[in-house]
Amino acid sequence: MTKKIIVMIPARLGSKRIPKKNLRYLGEKPLIQYPIELALHVPEFDSVWVNTESEELGKAIQTMGAQFHKRPPELATDQATNREFTYEFMCKHDCDYVVMINSTSPLLRMETVQKFANYVVENDYDTVLSVVSEKEETFYQGKALNFSLENKVNSQTLEPVQKIVWALTAWRREHFMKLEQAGQCPVFAGELGLFEIPKDESCDLDTEEDWNIAEGRITAAGIRTEARYLKL
Amino acid sequence: MTKKIIVMIPARLGSKRIPKKNLRYLGEKPLIQYPIELALHVPEFDSVWVNTESEELGKAIQTMGAQFHKRPPELATDQATNREFTYEFMCKHDCDYVVMINSTSPLLRMETVQKFANYVVENDYDTVLSVVSEKEETFYQGKALNFSLENKVNSQTLEPVQKIVWALTAWRREHFMKLEQAGQCPVFAGELGLFEIPKDESCDLDTEEDWNIAEGRITAAGIRTEARYLKL
Repeated sequence: MTKKIIVMIPARLGSKRIPKKNLRYLGEKPLIQYPIELALHVPEFDSVWVNTESEELGKAIQTMGAQFHKRPPELATDQATNREFTYEFMCKHDCDYVVMINSTSPLLRMETVQKFANYVVENDYDTVLSVVSEKEETFYQGKALNFSLENKVNSQTLEPVQKIVWALTAWRREHFMKLEQAGQCPVFAGELGLFEIPKDESCDLDTEEDWNIAEGRITAAGIRTEARYLKL
Repeated sequence: MTKKIIVMIPARLGSKRIPKKNLRYLGEKPLIQYPIELALHVPEFDSVWVNTESEELGKAIQTMGAQFHKRPPELATDQATNREFTYEFMCKHDCDYVVMINSTSPLLRMETVQKFANYVVENDYDTVLSVVSEKEETFYQGKALNFSLENKVNSQTLEPVQKIVWALTAWRREHFMKLEQAGQCPVFAGELGLFEIPKDESCDLDTEEDWNIAEGRITAAGIRTEARYLKL
């Protein structure tokens, strides 16, 4: 049985720390265009929606090939949660899974998004979270978590620590809606799949500094200059 | 009583994945020049040594203001450990603390290195490790570590997870040597201080891709272009 998977890209026009972030050019194109282009290239995705309160942004993203889901104004405030606007989106769109792609993950590669889609199709999870896995000596609450203070070992042999990055998330619609209606939190619920994304595809875009770093990384990815060396 | 603190910058000429990494230009200058310049600017540091097996590299770093500690060839192999060459270095240089600065941390800011020096001077730790602290929902061994699956909260309210980054490390010489001589591992030993460095100052330089990212970040830090926006 084929799973119907639709993509939701949340995009408020009024972002706080970086104003109008989604419209801002990062390298060659506006931020919002990155997840749209990625999503449109994956055959497993039935449709690609941008979830925004803004009519103007809604028009712009349609020229990029996405569809416009108009978010009600009361769910576009700073207080409204991801959970709330995702539920409202699900109420309007029938499907098996909603895949959320964050516009703040412009470094995602096509290959990774395709693998994520395959992972959702081939497994039967209620929730799939994207994580970055790191093998580094880690402390938690002042205690060594995945290593021993008695002995230094090669970090490649350490047990990994995985953090959620919210670049890609999938929820089984029926399960999410049932929990939400029962007053339970559906965000991490049910059978959980953890999908690893390469570390260099994750980034933050909360501050001007983050933006600058991402811009540098996107620029650097395009220009591979010849290595130069100090002569001895 | 003043603490005598000396800096050791480990730098093999024969690096594997990125050949002759320390001589390679990252932006405006060779990689090895970054930690040397940082260390020379901190008044609390008594002297700055590059620990390398290479006579040629030893000459080059002296033109940059550092001193040359010649590492014995048997400690310059892939099998030799950080612990071994640090012990050998300590045997030759009297001091209270050795601060190790890795050349693979070119994004460190002067201010951070100065704060680290103050932290070593003002406290009385046997070992000071640099860590990056992150407030992200984290899994360890398949279980939620610092959050509840029952409830999604603002990630700023999560308990942080701290990973060692090896950008800056300090060891009390006497303590380190005593443990090493007793056959115990001195790397994480004794009273441990965890010094937080800003996330954007840590980086990896293990692969060409890492190098590309760091180059992009260094370039981006210098050029702050005006924000451009998609017109609606």
